[in-house]
Formats: sequence, structure tokens, C-alpha cells
Amino acid sequence: MIIHTQNSGLSGEIISKGKAKVGAYIEHLQNVIRQKVYDPPESSLVLPGDSLYHNEIKAMIQKKKTSALKHIVVVGIGGSNLGTKAVYEALYFYRDQLRRDTSATHMHFLDTVDPEMTHAFVEFMKRNIKSSDEIVINIISKSGGTTETLVNAEIVIAEFRKISQNWKDRCVVSTDEGSKLWKEAEKNNIDTLRIPKQVGGRYSVFSAVGLFPLGLCGIDIDALLDGATMATTTMDNALYSAIFHSHYVHEGKNIADTFVFHTELESLGKWYRQLMGESVGKDGKGISPTVTVGSIDHHSIVQLYLGGPKDKSTTFVFTSKSQELDIPKHPVFDLSVEFAGKTEASIMHAIRKGTAEAYKKQHLPFLEVEFSHICEKELGWFMQWKMIEMMILGKLLEVNAFDQPHVELYKTETRKMLEANNE
Amino acid sequence: MIIHTQNSGLSGEIISKGKAKVGAYIEHLQNVIRQKVYDPPESSLVLPGDSLYHNEIKAMIQKKKTSALKHIVVVGIGGSNLGTKAVYEALYFYRDQLRRDTSATHMHFLDTVDPEMTHAFVEFMKRNIKSSDEIVINIISKSGGTTETLVNAEIVIAEFRKISQNWKDRCVVSTDEGSKLWKEAEKNNIDTLRIPKQVGGRYSVFSAVGLFPLGLCGIDIDALLDGATMATTTMDNALYSAIFHSHYVHEGKNIADTFVFHTELESLGKWYRQLMGESVGKDGKGISPTVTVGSIDHHSIVQLYLGGPKDKSTTFVFTSKSQELDIPKHPVFDLSVEFAGKTEASIMHAIRKGTAEAYKKQHLPFLEVEFSHICEKELGWFMQWKMIEMMILGKLLEVNAFDQPHVELYKTETRKMLEANNE
Repeated sequence: MIIHTQNSGLSGEIISKGKAKVGAYIEHLQNVIRQKVYDPPESSLVLPGDSLYHNEIKAMIQKKKTSALKHIVVVGIGGSNLGTKAVYEALYFYRDQLRRDTSATHMHFLDTVDPEMTHAFVEFMKRNIKSSDEIVINIISKSGGTTETLVNAEIVIAEFRKISQNWKDRCVVSTDEGSKLWKEAEKNNIDTLRIPKQVGGRYSVFSAVGLFPLGLCGIDIDALLDGATMATTTMDNALYSAIFHSHYVHEGKNIADTFVFHTELESLGKWYRQLMGESVGKDGKGISPTVTVGSIDHHSIVQLYLGGPKDKSTTFVFTSKSQELDIPKHPVFDLSVEFAGKTEASIMHAIRKGTAEAYKKQHLPFLEVEFSHICEKELGWFMQWKMIEMMILGKLLEVNAFDQPHVELYKTETRKMLEANNE
Repeated sequence: MIIHTQNSGLSGEIISKGKAKVGAYIEHLQNVIRQKVYDPPESSLVLPGDSLYHNEIKAMIQKKKTSALKHIVVVGIGGSNLGTKAVYEALYFYRDQLRRDTSATHMHFLDTVDPEMTHAFVEFMKRNIKSSDEIVINIISKSGGTTETLVNAEIVIAEFRKISQNWKDRCVVSTDEGSKLWKEAEKNNIDTLRIPKQVGGRYSVFSAVGLFPLGLCGIDIDALLDGATMATTTMDNALYSAIFHSHYVHEGKNIADTFVFHTELESLGKWYRQLMGESVGKDGKGISPTVTVGSIDHHSIVQLYLGGPKDKSTTFVFTSKSQELDIPKHPVFDLSVEFAGKTEASIMHAIRKGTAEAYKKQHLPFLEVEFSHICEKELGWFMQWKMIEMMILGKLLEVNAFDQPHVELYKTETRKMLEANNE
């Protein structure tokens, strides 16, 4: 992964000031990694180097893996599924859209309490699951009390019980050790995986939350962790991009756009949207993270970006290496002749470079993140880089990057509504 | 469709001032509808009442419909596919995610030039298309010169030719009458459907662009048009929501969030994102449209919305009527007992109402759009309402709501890149 910074618009002075402000904090982060103790709120940094914990997760993967395994059901929402979905879709988006007839293991995400969604999934189970070794249900809730997750888990299990008596063997509950859900899973003889207590939901992709379902699906979690480790060995990138965001929000740019050039990376952008949204959006402060997908959104919202208010900073994400696909040399339509014999990738490459040029001409600041290709290692690197960036950004903006106090506002009101319905 | 305005925060005075500014323009819009002439830039308003044109489209649907039809390939991008995708996914999102084994007709969208995507689709065709009557390829480009669309069309057709000699009979080109693409389609004996010249891409969902593939797929396009007509008979809703957006952008809220409570409506939000982004994002002005999906994003970005800067206005979109699904009366986990025996929809309902209460308490302005249920008629109504809103908003913000001049900036640079590669 290479980060090109020449169009960031950051002067040496801005960078020096930022560095000075968080120098001590960077040292603290490095200490957390060195000491390998789950205690401070930054404990997620310990995860990539914790091989004891990885072995617990890998043992569970071995226990649940069967030759017939076709469906992994991730019952979780927010920090409990966005990271997993980001990695899974980056690698398998198009396979899942179009190649359902392979014998591969597919992942399903049950997040919100949408009756249309849950109903469709229950019907799918009825039709497709013939024996319990074809499926694993992973129920993930850090607190153990997430409404949506409990509701979906109950509905899916109720159906699964009808299909198989061995349903308990095919469930895994991932939660804080000792949470209510943990205890009830144990009481029911359902296997559990612990999420270290100090690791917050949106920082938990390298815990059992992400590693178990991804590894079970055949994704190379060691490579993912290798990438994450690379991001922790040098924190320069994270420091730079944190200063980038901090500078531009102070300049009045209240939107940070992650502009990916591959549809299969949209979910990675959405993972980052939670990370930035929840980590630094509080106390009246914050930056609104958005996700843009090239070249789809060139035909949607790039007009606004190039011609509208200059209220955004941008991070382009792309890889130059991808599937080669030739455009036919002898086109049906004469007006296609200018593309004939080129590759599709070369067209996308030109659009990406053309976009960067247009941004430069409009004086819109941007970073460019270049993946060598879309693989576990680069994804792990990107995600860990972004999590460190967010911790540093919290310091720069002087907010607590690890809590989400305002979520309680709607939860309190929702509880009132539910209680009123009971009367 | 009902629009609840009591939490808009708009005073009578603000509304009166807005009405005064665009009174003459509203009359102009009503004249356009009455006179049924495709001449002014607002000509898209003529579409729902143009039965002659509908008959052309319906005749083409009859011509291409076969009992074996399983795949409709929409090759188009931006205004050429976002509206179609919005309606299709609103109705069939979960079926397509999970119920691929039915004999239904599925729609595929080839938009950007992503070699991973196109390659996956070509492989899918190789495996699944046995005879030409199983597929229709609809190539859509208003100008007739959209790079992505031409490239994807050439690649897909090159593959289709290998499968069937009758490939031309199964293609339809939708474009401006007389465009280069139109002429080349005619030269090749490929059927064409015209897009009325004065109807801009992002306003074209009720032209052949949307109606042909949607109708061919079995979607009730008459109901869609009935809904659109209802939005044109009264313009009060559009006037109100245009004033809502205009007021809050002047108050410094530069983000307009469409907050849907059904995952299958995310694409409807993305359709609106283009409509607002391109229509009023120019001359340094504009509003950044975002899409939020409840309750997924309650666990992602609602912290920012409730606790961060007050830089957004919000439009909630929901229906109270949906699939009923009971949560089991006897849960596996004791801590689920508070939901036992309720319906999933009642939980979502409480989350939605709880969210609105939290917004009220934080003094965040919002409109609420309530669909009777998610169906063609309500979708048509919503889309036409929004298109009229955008025309009025253009007047209020004093920008041309029908052009997209800055898109040329990246296109010019992209052409330079492509030409440099040729040397």
C-alpha cells in the first residue's frame, strides 16, 4: 500500500504543529503495542500480535469447519459486522452477485430487524439447508444485549431447530467474556468466543468478531493480521492522514469523502464511515464521512464535488492491478472504435487519473491510497492504518475516540416506545 | 404517501417568502404539464401523461417478452440506470439476494467499467444463457456516447454473439432520437427506443429509460405512472420540501440526509443523491445529499448525527406496513424475553419513533415521508415529487437545475489520459 500525499495541500508547518501536538500520544500507542496488555482504550492495537488469542479463534474454526459448509450466517450489526463485511465483499462481491452456482462457502449478514430481510432468509434456510453441517450461525454482540442481534438470532435459531437437532453445535456466540449473553450461551452449551473487554466494537475487526467468520470462510486471516502489523510498525501514515482530516475540518470542510474506484470496496468505505462517524462525532464536533464509488458516482455526484461548495477533503482508494479484460477489436458500433482493443482497466485508470487532475485544477485537497492489489494483506493494512488514524484524530480534535454517548438518546426513546406498546 | 411536516422547523413566514419567490415558476410547471409539449427543460413532467409514448414502449415490451425470459441486462450508468435500479431493488432486493432459485426474471446492472464486474458477468452469461430468448440486453445512453456504456455493451455483445445468432433481436438501444448510437443501432438492425430530447438523464426514469426494463421485468409501470401523476396534480409537497432544503442550506446546513428505514430503499436514496447532487451543485453552491439506512446506521453514524455538528437536514422515509414476522414466544436466551412474541416490525417501528424523538430533543429539523406500503404507485409518487422539488429548489437557489457543466472537467482530463496512452 502506498499513500500519495503530494496533493494534500498540507504545508510543512501544519504537519509540524500536528506532530508536536500528538508526539506524546504516538509514544503511548507504541507502548501499548510493545507491552501487549489489554488495558487502555487503545487495546485493539494489541490484537494483531496476540497469537494466543488467534489460536483460540483458529481452534474454533477447526471445530466448526466441515467439508459440507456452505453458509456462514453473521448475526450482528455495526461494529459486529461492518469490518467482516468490508473484507468479505472486497474479496467476493462479484462472485456472490453472479456466481451462486459454485460450491463455495457464502457469508450472509443479518443486521437490522427488517422483517422482509429476516423472512427472506428464513425461507432461504427452509429451501437450502438440508443438514446442520452446511451452516454455521455466528451471533455477535459485544455488550451481549443488542436488540437487533437478539431478535434475529432467536428467529433464525427457531427455524434451524426445525431442520436439525444438532443446532447448538453449529452456533458460536462472540461477546464480552462474562456478559449476560456469554452466560446464557454457556448455560445452553453453545460455544463462545471472547471479545477482549477493552476493545471497542468499531475497533474489533481483528478480534474474534472478524477473524472467526472470515477464517471459517477460507479467507487468509494470517495475511490480514500481517497487513495490520505493517500498519503498526510505522505510524507515519496514520499521523499524516489524521493531520489531514484535522486541518481541513478546522478549515470548514465538514465532509470527508472516501472515494473508491472499485465497487467491491464500497463496504470498506462504510466500515470507515462508522469508525470516523462514531469516533470523532461528539461534543458538537465531528466530520461527516461519505463514500463515493467511481465511476458510478462520476455520473451522479462528481458534478457537485467539482462545481459545488469546497466543503470536502477526499481520500481516493484504488489499485492499478486487476483482472485484465479486453474490449473487442472489432466493435459493433463504430463510435466504440476509440476504445477497441484497449483493456477495461486502462479506461478506469484514465478516469481515475483524469479525476485527480480535475480535483487539482479545482484546488480540492486529496490523498491517494494505492493498493498493490485487493487482497487480505492490503485490507488488513488499510484498516489498521485507519483505526490508528482515528485514535490520533481524536487527540487532535480533543474528543474521546472510544465512546458513543449520544447513541443512548435514541435508545432511551426507543425503550419508551416499546414499553408504551406493552401497556 | 403522507408527508409529516410538524418537525420541519419552518415558520409560516419562511414558507410565505419561499412561495412568493417561486409562485410564477409553479405556474410555469403547471403549464408545462397542461400543454404536454416537449420543449422546456422541465419536459420530463410531460412523461406521465404521454400515452402515445407509453404505447411505443409497451409495444417494445410485448415484442421482447418471452416465456423463457430470465435476465434483463441494463447497460447504462447514472441517469440511465439509477432510477430503474431504485424501483427494481425497492421491490425485489431480498428476492435477488436470497431467492435465486425461483424462475423469476432478474435484472442485472452493468454500469462502471470495472473489469472484475464485467468479467464476472461474462462468465455468468457463459454458464447460464442457453438460448437467446432467455435474455434481453438494453443499452441505454441519452447522449449515445457514454464511455462506460459503450465499452460494456461491446464486451457483452461479443459474448452474446457466441451464444446466439439471433443476438440482434434481443438487444434494444434507448437513446436520443438521431444520436450517433441511434443511427448505428438502425444500421445494425437493432431495435431502438427514443428518449425525448428535452428530458435530462436524471429526470428520465418515466421515459423509456426506466419504463422499458421495469415493464419487461413484470413491474406495473401503469401504477408507477399513476403515482407520478398524483405528484403533479398538487405541487404543494414539492414546494414545501424545496423551501425546507433552501432554508437550511442558507442556515449553513450543507448536508441533506435521506434516512430510509428499509434496506431495499437504499438505491432510491442513491437515485435522489444524483438528482440533488447534479441539479443544484454548481456555481460554488449546492447541498451534499447523503443516504442513511436504519437501523444499520444507528450502529454506525447516528452518534455523529445526534452528538456532532448540526450541519444536516433530514428526510425520514418509511412504511408502517410490511411483512409480519413473529419473534419466538419461547426464546433460547433469557435476555430476549422482552421481545418474545412481538413482531419484528414493531421493534423497527419503535426504533424509528425513538429516533424521531431524539432528533426533536436535539433540535434537528426533519420531514417524515410515510409510504402506505412499498409499491409501484408510492415509488412513482415519491420520485416525481422529488423531481419537481429539485426544479423548484433550483429556482430558490438561483442555479440551473438541468445542466451539469463541471462533469466536463474530469472528462476532458480523462480524454487527455486516453490519448496520451495511444501515443
